[in-house]
Amino acid sequence: MTLAVRYTAARTLDTARVENPPPGPGEVELAPAYVGICGTDLHIFHGDMDARVTTPAVLGHEMSGRVVRVGPDVEDWRPGDAVTVMPLRWDGDCPACRAGHRHVCQHLDFIGIDSPGAMQQRWTVPAATLVRVPDGVPLDRAALVEPTAVAVHDVARAGVGSGDRVVVVGGGPVGVLIALVARGAGAQVRVVELSPHRRKLAAELGLEVWDPAADDVLALVREWTGDAGADVAFEVSGAAAGVETAVEVLGVRGRLCLVAIHAQPREVNLHRFFWRELTLVGARLYERADFERAVALVADPDFPAGGLISGVVPLTEAPSAFEALEAGGNVMKILVDCGADTEGAAV
Amino acid sequence: MTLAVRYTAARTLDTARVENPPPGPGEVELAPAYVGICGTDLHIFHGDMDARVTTPAVLGHEMSGRVVRVGPDVEDWRPGDAVTVMPLRWDGDCPACRAGHRHVCQHLDFIGIDSPGAMQQRWTVPAATLVRVPDGVPLDRAALVEPTAVAVHDVARAGVGSGDRVVVVGGGPVGVLIALVARGAGAQVRVVELSPHRRKLAAELGLEVWDPAADDVLALVREWTGDAGADVAFEVSGAAAGVETAVEVLGVRGRLCLVAIHAQPREVNLHRFFWRELTLVGARLYERADFERAVALVADPDFPAGGLISGVVPLTEAPSAFEALEAGGNVMKILVDCGADTEGAAV
Repeated sequence: MTLAVRYTAARTLDTARVENPPPGPGEVELAPAYVGICGTDLHIFHGDMDARVTTPAVLGHEMSGRVVRVGPDVEDWRPGDAVTVMPLRWDGDCPACRAGHRHVCQHLDFIGIDSPGAMQQRWTVPAATLVRVPDGVPLDRAALVEPTAVAVHDVARAGVGSGDRVVVVGGGPVGVLIALVARGAGAQVRVVELSPHRRKLAAELGLEVWDPAADDVLALVREWTGDAGADVAFEVSGAAAGVETAVEVLGVRGRLCLVAIHAQPREVNLHRFFWRELTLVGARLYERADFERAVALVADPDFPAGGLISGVVPLTEAPSAFEALEAGGNVMKILVDCGADTEGAAV
Repeated sequence: MTLAVRYTAARTLDTARVENPPPGPGEVELAPAYVGICGTDLHIFHGDMDARVTTPAVLGHEMSGRVVRVGPDVEDWRPGDAVTVMPLRWDGDCPACRAGHRHVCQHLDFIGIDSPGAMQQRWTVPAATLVRVPDGVPLDRAALVEPTAVAVHDVARAGVGSGDRVVVVGGGPVGVLIALVARGAGAQVRVVELSPHRRKLAAELGLEVWDPAADDVLALVREWTGDAGADVAFEVSGAAAGVETAVEVLGVRGRLCLVAIHAQPREVNLHRFFWRELTLVGARLYERADFERAVALVADPDFPAGGLISGVVPLTEAPSAFEALEAGGNVMKILVDCGADTEGAAV
């Protein structure tokens, strides 16, 4: 039996002892250390994804932890190994998989949404989903590998290159990680964010930040780019106004990478796409190479991922942490401590 | 003096004798042979572009003709040469030009919209805009080089490759040319078009055509692609429903090339862009290489460009041809005969 955080109905989480299956062939049982609370987890908590999620559902897909035991036919892992999980299972046989895009498999199992997640004391997953965390990387930082992999994928999809001028619309955890990854790729970056708390945090990470309620973002972009417009914009806000800003800031042949989920259709200035030959690129999740690159980034002490961690709560307090996040407030990333961090964490 | 077709006010064209300036340094005086009436010309005729067009305006930018005389410092051209014109003048100095995208210069002069066009008996243009028409190419076909260059550019922007499954939404002249160019690039192509006349014409060119009012286009795409969805869609209809169809038909990592002008913002299913990692690519006009490739296509007797020509009218009847096109009816491409085709045309 394992203590788990479960979504049971809209705006209702509990903690309960549940059965975690022993590792079968090709599977590994993990002891999760830290599990991040993600925007998608909040969507589930809101009840927005009830058509997809089977209750009770154990949440959590941004994690770090250690191997506890391995099932038959697992050769590369042994108890004590520090790991994170790339939480995707694909069928390998649909048209998307056959075209080489397994991460957007037409029958994708996103572990933590479509099947039980990591917010529990024991968690059994396919060994193929494991990604090794190098020695010495604090496990709380390692829980940021998954959102960092999202950012790596987004920056790659947008084709960000050295010297590109990049506007990130939305400075939540993924937006800030995109900004950091793009900066690491040699881009000049500006972050547009409404929340003063998030602007302050981004500024502390050395990012240049604009307030769309006070700054004339389009005029600032014109001044910054010598009237050329930005090379790349990322829409990470999920808001209609964010889409508009991300389109308007771009110069000729600019690329807009669409990261946020927009549940309803949005009005888009298609004439601008025609006139400036803009490109809109949808980006979802990550591929294995993105995940491994994210591990390397998070392992690099110069990559300030730890600065995103607003707080750590024990497993039993995860339900109230969801309620606090739901209420807004001055937080960025909250980690749930599932108890396996025997070596301690140093952010 | 030269007889010219002039736009004077919304829904009003006349023919009048106007002054055509003699060729200055680096300029060439042409005798236009055939000038196609384009959708943009109709937009001007509607009055939709009055903010941009200075009246009276001589229209026309899809043309063929012959050199009559050359100005000082023009070495590569001589009277009698058969030519078409790439009707763009750029400043060479704006951020778009400096980035190498002169065809979308931020101060572009589109000749025939922003400055006098080809629907006249004599037309002076910069020698740099001339593109040679090979011997033996009928000049009526040569008037289709410009819209063919649009299609070549669009197909290149969409990255159409051999074996790609391509849906062209909108079967007017540019849509059909896109379908023909994509087919020539080895793609499998379907054209979606409401007009029975245009469907019939496209079918006569060997294209597979669907009627969105009668056919279940999405079901047909699923069947055709083994549930994968199309690789590429072109939105050439200009209609809100066309945008929706072009998004819905695409499979994972599909590319939507936006060709039509949408004057107002459109609702776009951005969630589909995220979910399937789609790409939207705006395409405008053409680059020099597209234009030269279009000349080669139009010069190839196997490229059925001539099949698009619905009729040829003399210069003096151009105003009534605009009215007929405005009223709809069973036409594809109408050419205005400006009188210079001394060698006769054979479509």
